[in-house]
Amino acid sequence: MNIEDLKKGLLEGNTRYLAKSITLIETTNLSKRENADRLLNSILPYTGKSLRIGISGVPGVGKSTFIETFGKFLTSIGKKVAVLAVDPSSKISGGSILGDKTRMQELSKDANAFIRPSPSGESLGGVARKTRESILLCEAAGYDVVIVETVGVGQSEIAVASMVDCFVLLQLPGAGDELQGIKKGIMEISDIILINKAEADNKPKALLAKKQIENALHILKPRADKWQVRVLLVSALKNEGIEAFWKTLRYFETHMKNNGLFFEKRKEQSVDWMYKLLNDEIMRIFKSNENVKKKLPDYIENVKSGKENPASATKKLIAEFFKDNHN
Amino acid sequence: MNIEDLKKGLLEGNTRYLAKSITLIETTNLSKRENADRLLNSILPYTGKSLRIGISGVPGVGKSTFIETFGKFLTSIGKKVAVLAVDPSSKISGGSILGDKTRMQELSKDANAFIRPSPSGESLGGVARKTRESILLCEAAGYDVVIVETVGVGQSEIAVASMVDCFVLLQLPGAGDELQGIKKGIMEISDIILINKAEADNKPKALLAKKQIENALHILKPRADKWQVRVLLVSALKNEGIEAFWKTLRYFETHMKNNGLFFEKRKEQSVDWMYKLLNDEIMRIFKSNENVKKKLPDYIENVKSGKENPASATKKLIAEFFKDNHN
Repeated sequence: MNIEDLKKGLLEGNTRYLAKSITLIETTNLSKRENADRLLNSILPYTGKSLRIGISGVPGVGKSTFIETFGKFLTSIGKKVAVLAVDPSSKISGGSILGDKTRMQELSKDANAFIRPSPSGESLGGVARKTRESILLCEAAGYDVVIVETVGVGQSEIAVASMVDCFVLLQLPGAGDELQGIKKGIMEISDIILINKAEADNKPKALLAKKQIENALHILKPRADKWQVRVLLVSALKNEGIEAFWKTLRYFETHMKNNGLFFEKRKEQSVDWMYKLLNDEIMRIFKSNENVKKKLPDYIENVKSGKENPASATKKLIAEFFKDNHN
Repeated sequence: MNIEDLKKGLLEGNTRYLAKSITLIETTNLSKRENADRLLNSILPYTGKSLRIGISGVPGVGKSTFIETFGKFLTSIGKKVAVLAVDPSSKISGGSILGDKTRMQELSKDANAFIRPSPSGESLGGVARKTRESILLCEAAGYDVVIVETVGVGQSEIAVASMVDCFVLLQLPGAGDELQGIKKGIMEISDIILINKAEADNKPKALLAKKQIENALHILKPRADKWQVRVLLVSALKNEGIEAFWKTLRYFETHMKNNGLFFEKRKEQSVDWMYKLLNDEIMRIFKSNENVKKKLPDYIENVKSGKENPASATKKLIAEFFKDNHN
């Protein structure tokens, strides 16, 4: 299919064209990648209008039930919602989040919802890049809210936080032991914290967790954007607290827009992303350079055996790289 | 001073020459840096014989008192001990750790101890590089134990863990609230956890903290090196538990040597370090390239304003970089 047709279908909000466009940007084929870049540049003027939300939490916290309930709420108030995922582990497990067709069954039947599993067979860097680009495609297709789901482990949360406007952390009710699961780092990047499963017997535990998390938040230093992180109780199962969450999201958006930081943050995210891509691409070129490829194993061996220090090995390898040119 | 003289003094264990050598590797002057590389390569055969220990903990945990007490213990059993520091914040605060002359007063007067503050005015990457190289210089000067101290915040702990044989985390007595300070990430890189200030009235709180930390350790997945992390009570102030800590360190060393992983880990650390240096150096060359410097501001502007997507801006900037050559 040519790029013009793809773009036209995308801008009309056709989900088949949206899916095809995402498949195109997920390609590793170099000539297709040129088409992907052309498509992305041509749709850029139509992007940026959604609210981009990151949602994270450990396995078992009820992320997919929550996203289903929240997604249905959004379509019920007339919003179009897209759900993407960042899950680098899907290359091993064959898709641990969003790969399962039985998840979000109701939402997936909703005409105003679009669900796309995590790209697979990729490093975190690759998955993150494709998800960032998918956000833009969803926006061009007219989605008002783009949710990026990730598992609550390691670097993928940082990657997701760097591509969304608002980062939401899902927690379980219960204090003490459970609370140890909250890393300081993840608290620092969260804008809203939700205690899910805050229903029936869990209510007192959920309230206690809220209090403990709020105490823990107090010891963090004040944020530059002056946002006071909110901790809310929700029950995805009982459909409780969802509207209050949406109001808090809109309040956050307003706060950041009044601050002048909403679009500023997006600009910074784009530039950081460009530097990340530059770094990855230059290292890829370096490692595939013929001179480097010939010498690298010897240098690794010398560094391992302690014959050469890493700094001078680096200097010599870089000389190999630039041997045939003038940089 | 010429490199041969420096090397000779260093290998004789002369602390004045050791200090001079560290100053040399801390230089940013390019021709001096060549001398630094020559010195490092020439002393490599004399390195590797120390036990390299990382020590971390939040401000107030008593790191310097602990290192003073532990250091004095080491010299009392005939060991030579060197204390280095990784503190990227020292560029702002003017030296928040080890910069203060009043710290470790007794240890600093000990002929068998060498204390060097964190290199200042540098990024974490720069500080880490210089500290790694300083470890090698201390080893060449005959130090049996090299302690690398760092503050318990952010990425500097990861950097230190990647340059030592054994990573030790200092904790305060007390459970609940205090325990929240333990990030999962830092637990995962710690080999030994010490609860400091476990004296007098603090004893019960320290025991409780020990139990809670041990419980938290159980939920982590088993380590590939099959080491079971030890949690010990110590009092640097009362000089209690120090010998038991030293025994545990030696037991860890034996465990890793029997596993075959002790030197394997060092080899991996060196190769990772080389890749890190390669990456930094290539990006430095990229950013100082004339074509790139001319075009970069425009591309940043276009990416910020949404005129161009980061992926295609990257492609064009890399074309600028290689315009005059063949890579």
